[in-house]
Amino acid sequence: MSKVHNFSAGPGILPIDVLKQASEACLNFDNMNLSLLEISHRSKNYVAVMDEARALIKELFEVGDEYEVMYLGGGASTQFAMVPYNLLTETGYAAYVNTGVWSSKAIKEAKIIGNTKVIASSEDKKFNYIPKGYEVPNDADYLHITSNNTIYGTQMKSFPKCSVPLVCDMSSDLFSRKVNAKDFALIYAGAQKNIGPAGSTMVMVKKDILGKTGRKMLSMLDYQVHIKGESMYNTPPVFPVYVTMLTLRWLKQHGGISWIEEINQKKADLLYGEIDRNSMFYGTAAKEDRSFMNVCFLLHKPELEPEFDKFWNSLGISGIRGHRDVGGYRASIYNAMPIESVQVLVDAMKEFEKKFA
Amino acid sequence: MSKVHNFSAGPGILPIDVLKQASEACLNFDNMNLSLLEISHRSKNYVAVMDEARALIKELFEVGDEYEVMYLGGGASTQFAMVPYNLLTETGYAAYVNTGVWSSKAIKEAKIIGNTKVIASSEDKKFNYIPKGYEVPNDADYLHITSNNTIYGTQMKSFPKCSVPLVCDMSSDLFSRKVNAKDFALIYAGAQKNIGPAGSTMVMVKKDILGKTGRKMLSMLDYQVHIKGESMYNTPPVFPVYVTMLTLRWLKQHGGISWIEEINQKKADLLYGEIDRNSMFYGTAAKEDRSFMNVCFLLHKPELEPEFDKFWNSLGISGIRGHRDVGGYRASIYNAMPIESVQVLVDAMKEFEKKFA
Repeated sequence: MSKVHNFSAGPGILPIDVLKQASEACLNFDNMNLSLLEISHRSKNYVAVMDEARALIKELFEVGDEYEVMYLGGGASTQFAMVPYNLLTETGYAAYVNTGVWSSKAIKEAKIIGNTKVIASSEDKKFNYIPKGYEVPNDADYLHITSNNTIYGTQMKSFPKCSVPLVCDMSSDLFSRKVNAKDFALIYAGAQKNIGPAGSTMVMVKKDILGKTGRKMLSMLDYQVHIKGESMYNTPPVFPVYVTMLTLRWLKQHGGISWIEEINQKKADLLYGEIDRNSMFYGTAAKEDRSFMNVCFLLHKPELEPEFDKFWNSLGISGIRGHRDVGGYRASIYNAMPIESVQVLVDAMKEFEKKFA
Repeated sequence: MSKVHNFSAGPGILPIDVLKQASEACLNFDNMNLSLLEISHRSKNYVAVMDEARALIKELFEVGDEYEVMYLGGGASTQFAMVPYNLLTETGYAAYVNTGVWSSKAIKEAKIIGNTKVIASSEDKKFNYIPKGYEVPNDADYLHITSNNTIYGTQMKSFPKCSVPLVCDMSSDLFSRKVNAKDFALIYAGAQKNIGPAGSTMVMVKKDILGKTGRKMLSMLDYQVHIKGESMYNTPPVFPVYVTMLTLRWLKQHGGISWIEEINQKKADLLYGEIDRNSMFYGTAAKEDRSFMNVCFLLHKPELEPEFDKFWNSLGISGIRGHRDVGGYRASIYNAMPIESVQVLVDAMKEFEKKFA
């Protein structure tokens, strides 16, 4: 098998050891001589998986029992609705920072449920930067932010100080770097970038912010129902949660967040360094807001795209086409991406410059 | 590896060929040299999977373009809410037939959204039969039924005639027998019994019943949003849908519904025949309503349970403990269960009788 360098924006690259264990579990899970795909989620073998998957989140975030962890179906898109459904009161309002398509979708859903206020936005420059210097109101029901924006390659390097509950969509940079989790009241993330495959969504919430809206809630949209059911109020997405658990275990066993943060820094430095040095390319995001997960760049001469495409295609590089809103290229360098693959891309850029500059 | 006879009530047994392909796809999907767990759901290879998974439903149900098929996250439990959210008007009401825990949960969610009327129920006899002879009102927004009740081992052998849209939760007997799909306006099913692993839910809906409530809807709960997005409005549960597609393909390739219906009839006849013949056991469901998927039975002398448990355990039989609401035993004999495994259970029952009668 030829090596593929997988720069997919998501679902994204996972550790090969995790993939091997996932493959084995499809045939024989936990020495049960049964596939993980055909056993009860209430079997003790699987309950242990769910328990570990939940515990690892709290361990990696270094938080205590004031937080609860859930794994739910429906993706981060369902969280766009569940957050206001569980936190936004009839008479109050929710504050949002708009940093791109995903923030905008979150705002759209919140508006269906109640009042919202966009307190900062980078829409004026096609979301190529992170707004700063705004004031967070102290009477909002919560403030919602998006820590990393896959499409534009921007990332919050620090988080707003606020007195209201801080809610963060960390779908695309969860556990890629140290954050002070205790500053957040709720963190959610679709698994399919750094922590697993598509089909499971992690929600970590501070218990004391729940149950305050007075809203009569649909069971599947009610965090308290899922907390009480220990993420098994209904049949959970069994296999996606298992692979998520394996990925979190892989992260912990290799040294946790501080280990991966150092590697991610090196990968980002390598690739952004080349973009800035190379006369053929330029980055699209404001330098101080550059994402360490999604590196967006364009050719000064877009007419050379077909030529550059030939270069990287021939090297087994996959998934670096930019999102249609930005164009050009986007190299997603999630946790499981080895620096060797980034080097292959950087070498391709160098070679390309030699030939076409 | 010793053979395990998997009678799990769900997630339940899947065809071994499907499990092998699922396992392989975790390492190398579609000869891409990438895992299915780490590629974009928008890649042409995966879009083909989703298209086939949707098309197979319509093909097996023999319906045309008046129906749309979706694969969603969140399980049938989410459908308990989505059905009334999409179909129940502010001033109207929904009719429900209550045949057990799952129907009851569906009713509970509908009540949060609007008015409901339970037009028939078997709660008076602990749901051990299917209500009959009731009249379906012609002014309801829809009638909701549950075709098979895993916990009590009951199954509707015919469906109510009605002039209002008929909505059916087929989670536990989908594609186990011929039904006239055109009699239904909406059919939904959690995949994890007959058609796949946990994490994906199939919804087939007649388009013309949608868009009539005037309700402003959350995107993820709006069928029309998912139909427009061809089940990719957001990142779908990639792997669960793939395994569902493989299971549907397996069914089609082996001869479709008429093929499996005959096998399921034989399995059910074999097992119910033994229950009725054997002096040690008796069935719990009304004979005319006996489920061909979940066979519930008790020992006349419950004190012998530990002895019978030893018998079946020693034969590699797994998952036949009854639900706590009914007790005793429940053998789930879904599509992928070979008749040979049912024979092993029947032989165990015979041996047990010889020793303890």
